[in-house]
Amino acid sequence: MSDEAAAQPPPESVKGARKPQILKGFRDYLPDQMRLRQEVIARFRTVFEAHGFEPLDTPAIEYLEVLTGKAGENEKLMYEFEDHGGRQVGLRYDLTVPLARVVAMHQSELVLPFKRYHIAPVWRAEKPQRGRFREFWQCDADIAGAPSALADAEVIAILGESLTAVDLPAFSMLISHRALLARLAVWAGVPEELAGQVYRSVDKLAKIGQHAVIEEMTGAGIEAAHAERILDAIMDTGDSSGMLHELRQRLGGDGAAMHAIGELEEIFAVLPAMGIPEGQARFDPTLARGLDYYTGPVFEATVDEPKVGSVAGGGRYEHLIGSFMNRTISATGVSLGMERILEVLNEFNTLPISAAAADVLVVTFADSVPASARIARQLRSSGLRAELASQSQRSVGEQLKYASRKNIPFAVIAGQAEIEKNEVGLKNLQTGEQVSLSLGEAVARIGSGKAESEASS
Amino acid sequence: MSDEAAAQPPPESVKGARKPQILKGFRDYLPDQMRLRQEVIARFRTVFEAHGFEPLDTPAIEYLEVLTGKAGENEKLMYEFEDHGGRQVGLRYDLTVPLARVVAMHQSELVLPFKRYHIAPVWRAEKPQRGRFREFWQCDADIAGAPSALADAEVIAILGESLTAVDLPAFSMLISHRALLARLAVWAGVPEELAGQVYRSVDKLAKIGQHAVIEEMTGAGIEAAHAERILDAIMDTGDSSGMLHELRQRLGGDGAAMHAIGELEEIFAVLPAMGIPEGQARFDPTLARGLDYYTGPVFEATVDEPKVGSVAGGGRYEHLIGSFMNRTISATGVSLGMERILEVLNEFNTLPISAAAADVLVVTFADSVPASARIARQLRSSGLRAELASQSQRSVGEQLKYASRKNIPFAVIAGQAEIEKNEVGLKNLQTGEQVSLSLGEAVARIGSGKAESEASS
Repeated sequence: MSDEAAAQPPPESVKGARKPQILKGFRDYLPDQMRLRQEVIARFRTVFEAHGFEPLDTPAIEYLEVLTGKAGENEKLMYEFEDHGGRQVGLRYDLTVPLARVVAMHQSELVLPFKRYHIAPVWRAEKPQRGRFREFWQCDADIAGAPSALADAEVIAILGESLTAVDLPAFSMLISHRALLARLAVWAGVPEELAGQVYRSVDKLAKIGQHAVIEEMTGAGIEAAHAERILDAIMDTGDSSGMLHELRQRLGGDGAAMHAIGELEEIFAVLPAMGIPEGQARFDPTLARGLDYYTGPVFEATVDEPKVGSVAGGGRYEHLIGSFMNRTISATGVSLGMERILEVLNEFNTLPISAAAADVLVVTFADSVPASARIARQLRSSGLRAELASQSQRSVGEQLKYASRKNIPFAVIAGQAEIEKNEVGLKNLQTGEQVSLSLGEAVARIGSGKAESEASS
Repeated sequence: MSDEAAAQPPPESVKGARKPQILKGFRDYLPDQMRLRQEVIARFRTVFEAHGFEPLDTPAIEYLEVLTGKAGENEKLMYEFEDHGGRQVGLRYDLTVPLARVVAMHQSELVLPFKRYHIAPVWRAEKPQRGRFREFWQCDADIAGAPSALADAEVIAILGESLTAVDLPAFSMLISHRALLARLAVWAGVPEELAGQVYRSVDKLAKIGQHAVIEEMTGAGIEAAHAERILDAIMDTGDSSGMLHELRQRLGGDGAAMHAIGELEEIFAVLPAMGIPEGQARFDPTLARGLDYYTGPVFEATVDEPKVGSVAGGGRYEHLIGSFMNRTISATGVSLGMERILEVLNEFNTLPISAAAADVLVVTFADSVPASARIARQLRSSGLRAELASQSQRSVGEQLKYASRKNIPFAVIAGQAEIEKNEVGLKNLQTGEQVSLSLGEAVARIGSGKAESEASS
């Protein structure tokens, strides 16, 4: 950072009065990361809107009693406090509870099914670790008021399209059904009060392996034969429809299990028509998904590398909206985690964003500032991003150095001599080449330089 | 809201467990308002980026000691609390203090002058009133590290371009200098300790008139002759340069006043070259601007109708960044108030936004969902926003009614008969007309209907 002209110290009364620090688990989005985030948001929005989803935003602060209820573990992590009016309030910890409140509060204005997207930060006082922040952005797409497997399939398809739209390297979508593990546990002979242990253990299968999962279950009081029976049922290999067919045979007499399997079969039947290739989405009976409020199909998206865990998840929740009103409005949705997606994109650099703040810097001279301002304006009206140098007292060399440090590829230099000839000097800051030409020619050169660098990036 | 299929009550355990309510002073952005806000943000971003400003975002929550300092009145309105680690934290109440912290913390990564924009919500526990919320969006553009009137002029030009870009009806930009009223008070003979009263009273001139302002000043202990002398000096009529010339004569011997007038003259000299027409920006010596941290030129933008007060304001602040470090980095910037701007746009409807969530609804039939999904996908790949009806168990009539209620202009209906003929039914929901044609022809018709409605809006 160099700013020689202003290098004097601040007055003693303010100098260093505050320590410039940021809370752990929080981050600044400096321009490069911010441009990447904006690009990801723009691409997600395009996908969401192409499917007819409408934008929504809600306050960061809500009544605490609106936020608490069925959130389970997440509630402990909520930022809560008393406001100036003595009200107990909290910062939203997800975008799903606010959606439920909105649907209940604005019943008369909304048409169901309500398909909305919401892209905004949420806050949880979690232990910060790699890819996990206390403030993080969620990109949610939900359908409220459509109790159909078709709605579930659509949000899964949107998830796949969204990840493809940001050029995420190979990802998988795993799909299961909340009722399935529960009915499997019953079928295997596990007492109902131990069903929760089955979810928790089976969820770790990919991480700790079959043997350790069985050990954990038996350690928690589940009979070894029952544990093995469950593992045997879910360790089926083969494609999704084959596995579902197999489970249908095993759980034959169980109505709830048949319903769950039927919904999953419907989802897998329509996904290819929605553009999700076979193999990108697959049935995974070990998928449990933590949140208490899921009641139907559940799903998540994972990337193998880097190890950031799942980058998105979702499912059907039948009763959350009903907790705010007197009728059931079944909903389903997906939440994409911005921070983890950015981490993957940063690691693989698959979505390169120009680091240049502008296409061209217009150099200023103390005796002809308005002329430079006029040139900058003409460049902008030709569609270019033209920065006007703010310090005309600086030498041309200093101004060009500034442009180079900001990755600005061109500089326009128009002193008295050029202005009189109705020309400008155009300097290519990569090659150092400088030519005199008309402003129109300069626009064309800067534009083609821009097109070239976009094509090569 | 109609959702007959799911009209059963929720389980007793959750039913109505929470009251769906929102805190006073906070608001939901339902889709129509959200689309308008997104459009305004997109247009502001285009202006900011055309000037070479880069995006930045910072956390909503900061250490309390970062946020407190020179904010004066605003500090009392800050949402503050203790976090889970016992740290005193607060919600940001503006975007300027976080910018100062960022410049100090990221010195080694940033190149000065740092031109950044930041569009984000801030929170203040103010008394809610029309156009004033406790959560509101600010759209800020600042230049840090360029102590020049040219930088001030640029942010003023950006302000004017931004308001023009959203088709705001007639607005004015008022410009003054923080040092000017202070030097005028001294020149008139007012003791230094009463100078603050001069700002406060003179700021009300447009509202309460010359007589009341003099009365208020004398009531506060300022001699009547001194008060009249000040009023006499600032009541000059005429154009900005004439008024500045007049003040230059009156305050002749005062170096600080001459410097301030010189900076204002520089600003007014370059604004026309920056595309700000004479008359859109004018010198107004009564402008005081509340914030303590301003030290140089100050400005604001107002609209006459509706009476929402100023829609934007800004100025130069020399010492705020220095309060986080050991050197002075002078900065200048403007803050546009989203809520007030939206209020004006809503009242005048000058920026009409399509209320349709989609360009076309694709009707679904229980026996051919994949075929409809495939059609929706093809429509999307032609650039249309195509919503796939989520409830294939509903009748075609119900699905069409849903589309009409959502302002979707077209529906594509493709049952077995149409699919066999490789055709689709296209229904215009405004005219009721329905035709059978190829999907390609349907795309063309929907696209031209869309173009028409955009042209007529």
